Amino acid sequence: MDPAMANLKAQMFQCVADESACKGNNKVTVVGIGAVGMAAAFSILAQNVSSEIALIDMFENKLKGEMMDLQHGSNFLKNAKITSSTDLSISAGSRLIIITAGVRQKEGESRLDLVQRNTDVLKGMVPKLVEYSPDTTLLIVSNPCDILTYVAWKLSGLPKNRVIGSGTNLDSSRFRFLLAQRLNVGPTSMHGWIIGEHGDSSVPVWSGVNIAGIRLREINPQAGQDNDPENWSQCHKDVVNAAYEVIKLKGYTSWAIGLSCADLASAIFTNSNTVKAVSTLVKGIHGIDKEVFLSLPCVLNSNGVTSIVKQQLSADELAKLHASADLMDQVQRGITF
Amino acid sequence: MDPAMANLKAQMFQCVADESACKGNNKVTVVGIGAVGMAAAFSILAQNVSSEIALIDMFENKLKGEMMDLQHGSNFLKNAKITSSTDLSISAGSRLIIITAGVRQKEGESRLDLVQRNTDVLKGMVPKLVEYSPDTTLLIVSNPCDILTYVAWKLSGLPKNRVIGSGTNLDSSRFRFLLAQRLNVGPTSMHGWIIGEHGDSSVPVWSGVNIAGIRLREINPQAGQDNDPENWSQCHKDVVNAAYEVIKLKGYTSWAIGLSCADLASAIFTNSNTVKAVSTLVKGIHGIDKEVFLSLPCVLNSNGVTSIVKQQLSADELAKLHASADLMDQVQRGITF
Amino acid sequence: MDPAMANLKAQMFQCVADESACKGNNKVTVVGIGAVGMAAAFSILAQNVSSEIALIDMFENKLKGEMMDLQHGSNFLKNAKITSSTDLSISAGSRLIIITAGVRQKEGESRLDLVQRNTDVLKGMVPKLVEYSPDTTLLIVSNPCDILTYVAWKLSGLPKNRVIGSGTNLDSSRFRFLLAQRLNVGPTSMHGWIIGEHGDSSVPVWSGVNIAGIRLREINPQAGQDNDPENWSQCHKDVVNAAYEVIKLKGYTSWAIGLSCADLASAIFTNSNTVKAVSTLVKGIHGIDKEVFLSLPCVLNSNGVTSIVKQQLSADELAKLHASADLMDQVQRGITF
Amino acid sequence: MDPAMANLKAQMFQCVADESACKGNNKVTVVGIGAVGMAAAFSILAQNVSSEIALIDMFENKLKGEMMDLQHGSNFLKNAKITSSTDLSISAGSRLIIITAGVRQKEGESRLDLVQRNTDVLKGMVPKLVEYSPDTTLLIVSNPCDILTYVAWKLSGLPKNRVIGSGTNLDSSRFRFLLAQRLNVGPTSMHGWIIGEHGDSSVPVWSGVNIAGIRLREINPQAGQDNDPENWSQCHKDVVNAAYEVIKLKGYTSWAIGLSCADLASAIFTNSNTVKAVSTLVKGIHGIDKEVFLSLPCVLNSNGVTSIVKQQLSADELAKLHASADLMDQVQRGITF
Repeated sequence: MDPAMANLKAQMFQCVADESACKGNNKVTVVGIGAVGMAAAFSILAQNVSSEIALIDMFENKLKGEMMDLQHGSNFLKNAKITSSTDLSISAGSRLIIITAGVRQKEGESRLDLVQRNTDVLKGMVPKLVEYSPDTTLLIVSNPCDILTYVAWKLSGLPKNRVIGSGTNLDSSRFRFLLAQRLNVGPTSMHGWIIGEHGDSSVPVWSGVNIAGIRLREINPQAGQDNDPENWSQCHKDVVNAAYEVIKLKGYTSWAIGLSCADLASAIFTNSNTVKAVSTLVKGIHGIDKEVFLSLPCVLNSNGVTSIVKQQLSADELAKLHASADLMDQVQRGITF
Repeated sequence: MDPAMANLKAQMFQCVADESACKGNNKVTVVGIGAVGMAAAFSILAQNVSSEIALIDMFENKLKGEMMDLQHGSNFLKNAKITSSTDLSISAGSRLIIITAGVRQKEGESRLDLVQRNTDVLKGMVPKLVEYSPDTTLLIVSNPCDILTYVAWKLSGLPKNRVIGSGTNLDSSRFRFLLAQRLNVGPTSMHGWIIGEHGDSSVPVWSGVNIAGIRLREINPQAGQDNDPENWSQCHKDVVNAAYEVIKLKGYTSWAIGLSCADLASAIFTNSNTVKAVSTLVKGIHGIDKEVFLSLPCVLNSNGVTSIVKQQLSADELAKLHASADLMDQVQRGITF
Repeated sequence: MDPAMANLKAQMFQCVADESACKGNNKVTVVGIGAVGMAAAFSILAQNVSSEIALIDMFENKLKGEMMDLQHGSNFLKNAKITSSTDLSISAGSRLIIITAGVRQKEGESRLDLVQRNTDVLKGMVPKLVEYSPDTTLLIVSNPCDILTYVAWKLSGLPKNRVIGSGTNLDSSRFRFLLAQRLNVGPTSMHGWIIGEHGDSSVPVWSGVNIAGIRLREINPQAGQDNDPENWSQCHKDVVNAAYEVIKLKGYTSWAIGLSCADLASAIFTNSNTVKAVSTLVKGIHGIDKEVFLSLPCVLNSNGVTSIVKQQLSADELAKLHASADLMDQVQRGITF
Repeated sequence: MDPAMANLKAQMFQCVADESACKGNNKVTVVGIGAVGMAAAFSILAQNVSSEIALIDMFENKLKGEMMDLQHGSNFLKNAKITSSTDLSISAGSRLIIITAGVRQKEGESRLDLVQRNTDVLKGMVPKLVEYSPDTTLLIVSNPCDILTYVAWKLSGLPKNRVIGSGTNLDSSRFRFLLAQRLNVGPTSMHGWIIGEHGDSSVPVWSGVNIAGIRLREINPQAGQDNDPENWSQCHKDVVNAAYEVIKLKGYTSWAIGLSCADLASAIFTNSNTVKAVSTLVKGIHGIDKEVFLSLPCVLNSNGVTSIVKQQLSADELAKLHASADLMDQVQRGITF
């Protein structure tokens, strides 16, 4: 600080305590500031889930631009603090680190090749991030989400409960919206869960779909099946297509995944024991014997995932879960750490 | 509704009253869904300022994509309703219409030519929007903001208090952040106003800059002047450059202007009589005799702007305001309605 | 306004539009400012459900004291407006009127005598309240809630969907807390509904109790029954005793019922189609042929109750509902309007 | 847990991590659950300032009743955790402890006698509270607030920045409301500060009263003085009388002081560097050479008070501050620790 300014500050303020000792304790770091990362950061700020966000990316200009744009709005955000850097050390002291970084599939690239390239990206950051924030929880949003959550867990050395994939929390939100629209009720009153792999092979748990505890299947026993005259399974097909459709129409997805991240961050920061569908280590549940991550309803709190809710699944649902688990396992075996 | 579904609905629900009679009364329409329009819509939803948003744009695909992306998050948004259409009638019954649409300056295009082209855009929509929502307030965000607010007012036939330009509410927010950062206080505790034209020729009212009622100029009488050793005027220069800088770095501005719109919408919907710097008809104030719109601190409530706060301006500040007013007036005279 | 003040105001503000035209559109009136009424008013203000509250009571001093105390906090409440009067006209233009007024049971007084006395209280206010706010929805909190909701409906001339009893929304909240505490999950993730009469003869719908769609009865088929080794029915007994217990311990209930009112007001004001258990006219549902009000899960929005959700009830649950309906009907027949 | 329940839990949940490791980090303890303490606790919960509250009082029944009443609403409060005990150990791990406990003035009791009795109350709790929560900040609300904050500081052994009196944050809120009402603007747009002793001898800083940076005294140089035809000083008189008036009318004050506490808690938890008027150690400021606590505008963040804002006070204002400081000092000298 230049002497003139120091002088003014001394005339205006009496310092009472060391400013450097002021630490928030709900710091969030967002790694990767594409549309998804920024929607997550902005949702968290706009909904007052956290008052301190650090942004990390390798593109220095865009990074500075996004930081400034958020800072210019801090007057509307209860004085939230926004920082950014290409250096991972800016994340120090985070309670939650949201990873949205990753490379995209090249034309003709195999899934395994993509996973390997993203593993290499995570290798360069996860160990350091955990070093800077040993008490953090990691939330992996990058795709393929379930495998990369496994990779991040392996790289992090953190207990399994503190490495979470955003998984089917978003798929479940889309599902509820689509079901709710058919029945003209608010989505928060339409209960339904999508579990398993985030994306194409996700599993809707039709038996649990209900409003006020009344199961859809009590009224229509075929709901979700092929022979259903009301064709409820279309809602799940629309969920699976949702990301493709939105990407085709606007180029990327952002708002809903951003809000999903804020929803999970809020459940963690308020230590709420709320049940959310997130990707977690599922070995030992539903007869899965592979060390893989898939989404199941989980109890979320300040310690990450402390319990997994064991739904009653049909033979068909179990078969799909196992198929996903086998596929994950197979891909994971090909990864070089 | 197909008969099977109607049957299921009849088994699950007893209809009590006409659903079509359910009307929210804080409906917002956002016209133009570029980065600014979407940031405004998302800020309003994420901060629960409104529970009903209609999006309007001419690009059908992007429009559908943005709507779907928001809808997929409605489960996280207290069941907010999101609709969209290329047709202006979707706005019917809005209490606030935010216009962010407009064409950009072409290379070599004069300012007046740009204004004329955007006037033509507004001509095609403002009268119809007001027809569909006669009780609406218009909030103009498109640039050049002050002139287009004048144009929208002329086209709308609405009383002057219900046509508002987002103006220097954003500039003031940026100003407070930059001042606050120097003194290490939260931006909401750093009071300062930028008035006049939104953009390059905006006027910082240095005499009013204060923390807890202590004016910066009580400590440093030269604050904001050229001979100031502490160079406070740099903060205003940085405000003026902020939009250019952010656009250079990330390609566009979005978050801060989005939050600024949500801030104004909230002041209006809660009928709060909050004082905000917005662009309003200034004829008769500060000796301005032209029929132009410029930003001044205004009392905002459900009726739009009901009062303008008359700051004590220095000769220099007045001169700058008058110069802006003259320039606005000159440009306006060239517009063909 | 005295001339000196008028002069100052003229120097400080330029009036632009008629202030009297500024009308909020989420005005709530709370009639009866005992512990319940004030907790409702304060919850609504503190959670920003409304920005305008009118308080009505017959005790002028207490009324003024409560109003002043809230007004002194309006700086912390986004500038909410708080008014009060012993005159019902202060309620004019309300979108929601919450009635918590009523006399208490005297020693030795029969239930019917109490109902008659409270009917007389409602007679003196409901017709006038509806005259001042013809578009309002009435929310009856006074006890016995179900019968007084019927009485208010009869007196109001309003369509049945716009007269609602707060009913078992609170009982359901207590039920979820007690169930959730046993399983160590957050109450919002513990789904369960209590329907029927608010109070002693309320009916817990055990078949619908679930977490993430997994019914408690899938794990423990006896849950809620007498022979249940886990004694889940204790949770319902505790709900029934809750009000008595809290009243015994602190003298009255306030916070939970206040939050329940704010929850219902929010569902209405955001036009959310959320499903809540409220007291509504149940004739024609579940085989009830009496014109009585009981709580069932209802779709709530700006038009009040637009649908009732038809749960699958057991023979035992139906019998209890019918018994309550018969009792209500019998009491209602004795009322002199 | 009985074996039947343990068995059900094992069927429903797969435990992943130790539940006892889940710790929120925004725990608030409220000591004293009279009207003030409960309004503070409820404001903090309803406004989501914290998700964990512990209540402490010596009246076991009322304590349990208040806890249950809040718990019954936790379903409406994002699953906030509410605990209570007559034992101070329930406060362990608090980041903020709000002390509202204290005895009331007996008829004929001298101020010093009252202070001594309340000092004795604090002696029994403050050292233990700090032992259970060594990182806590103390917020003293009990009256006489300034002296008891000094006492709590002395007893606590905490650095001065982490012992705060709620002081004139409430007086300032009342002041802004009363000023704002005269000018028909929202209280948050009406800036004004009351400093010094909380209560009768508080000092309004008229020079700083402003809207949008325009000082009232620029329009009316006599504002706040005896010869002022507009009689602005009445607003301060009304502030001083406010507590007496509200107590006379409703028996106690609660809502505004509760919201004031939530406001301060929010500033601390979000590490916001917001400027608030709170009671702090003022020795060395404004020429005060006594070790006393008085309210001045302070920068509040996670470290408590890190700076005091040095307003430009008039000779008269300084004299009043010094008189208060001398009085505090004199009373403090008579206290037996």
